[in-house]
Amino acid sequence: MGFAFDDATTVVAVGDNQYSATVHAGWDIGGNANGGYVLALVGAAMRQAAQGRDPVTITAHYLAPLTAGLVEITTETIKLGKRFTTVTANMRQGERDAVRAIGAFGECAMSSDGLSHTAGEPPALPDFAESARWMAVGADFQPAFVERVDVRLHPEDSGFGRGQPSGTAVMRGWFSFPDGRSMDALAMLLAADSFPPAIFNLTGTPDRVPTIELTVHVRAQPTPGPLRCVFTSRFVQGGMLEEDGEMWDSRGVLVCQSRQLRLVPRT
Amino acid sequence: MGFAFDDATTVVAVGDNQYSATVHAGWDIGGNANGGYVLALVGAAMRQAAQGRDPVTITAHYLAPLTAGLVEITTETIKLGKRFTTVTANMRQGERDAVRAIGAFGECAMSSDGLSHTAGEPPALPDFAESARWMAVGADFQPAFVERVDVRLHPEDSGFGRGQPSGTAVMRGWFSFPDGRSMDALAMLLAADSFPPAIFNLTGTPDRVPTIELTVHVRAQPTPGPLRCVFTSRFVQGGMLEEDGEMWDSRGVLVCQSRQLRLVPRT
Repeated sequence: MGFAFDDATTVVAVGDNQYSATVHAGWDIGGNANGGYVLALVGAAMRQAAQGRDPVTITAHYLAPLTAGLVEITTETIKLGKRFTTVTANMRQGERDAVRAIGAFGECAMSSDGLSHTAGEPPALPDFAESARWMAVGADFQPAFVERVDVRLHPEDSGFGRGQPSGTAVMRGWFSFPDGRSMDALAMLLAADSFPPAIFNLTGTPDRVPTIELTVHVRAQPTPGPLRCVFTSRFVQGGMLEEDGEMWDSRGVLVCQSRQLRLVPRT
Repeated sequence: MGFAFDDATTVVAVGDNQYSATVHAGWDIGGNANGGYVLALVGAAMRQAAQGRDPVTITAHYLAPLTAGLVEITTETIKLGKRFTTVTANMRQGERDAVRAIGAFGECAMSSDGLSHTAGEPPALPDFAESARWMAVGADFQPAFVERVDVRLHPEDSGFGRGQPSGTAVMRGWFSFPDGRSMDALAMLLAADSFPPAIFNLTGTPDRVPTIELTVHVRAQPTPGPLRCVFTSRFVQGGMLEEDGEMWDSRGVLVCQSRQLRLVPRT
């Protein structure tokens, strides 16, 4: 009776620094598990290793695609500090290393003390209730994964699926779960790679855009409700591109930043 | 007779996946080795482990300060791929893990093939030759490290050292070496943390702004000549801030992006 995301990120300790988990079917794009889901799954194991502390900054390198089925995660707690516990992880499927990660886990709760400064604002979006889910906007590109998240794209950014890319490598929209599961640090690891690549609004073609590396900074605990998200690629060159993400909660607080390095689709 | 930076980043293989190096004096701020120098040093060992391939994306977690003296670096080659070699590293000094890093090493040479897109431009700076080095702008804050790099701040961003912060968390300037050592991927790892923190232009006080995590993406091989750099902090909250960097070469090509998560100075 749990929420789907919690079921899909369940991690069981099977020994010292050893965890077992199952990559769930349906969280994939063409058979390969979504990168945000994979980050949340490895992050769930690392969070256990960090005795329940939440990820503050986590980096994953994607070495091999993961398919539905068992994975084993080995963690190492490098440093147990007052403020952060630093943990590495190796996620294997069969004989193959699939993901390596490193992260610092601790308090990301927003403190009202100290210096505060914001140069930026959440993306303007149509009301959540009046927005269409990604799966319903007529895109040809509808991986199984889109049923697991409730992503509602800004109408100006969703034309790529109808052969009408906006011409600007930006992807804005709402993120939440279809079953009402609340937002937290793990959910934001998922959200960091849950939108169609911003580059689709240049190419107009939903090709694979493999992730080499993804880093997520959790900047505050989100308040309840869908997140306003924006993903942007500013530099596409030499066969690679970066994609930067920002997530904002219902208070208008920046709760998460992400950056990933991806390979440009071969056209 | 070598360049100072090459001397200071010399790494000697002492066994399988084992390297020895010396944190050189003079590359410090108040006795602690500069974070960019440390990244370049661990990156030099990882590059050897990757058989000379250059860093394309590298992430370091800073666990303990490093002082001048011996360090030992243990590497692990996780994946030897056609395009990238993925390597982890553990840098220890004495009994203590000081830095953990993970990176993908390969070709970052700019290809003229494929999709190319740029939404950004290099920062406008006064001519290099007419700019003053950081050490010469009258700042109270002059760590030993500033003699090792030739950083020339934009005059609008250098007032923090005279009690006149600009009020905008941006730090622009030129980066090169005083002895003419050329720019390359390792030099850009150094440059990613060689400027005064952008936050000094809000606080006006040169306090310590410790780095938790630093990720650098090398986006192209730089052409000869000083780099135009800009560092920006947009979100300061909950005791943390991000600092994003861009470096541009003499062609006007973006050659490097960096992002670090830092602790806000305690005031």
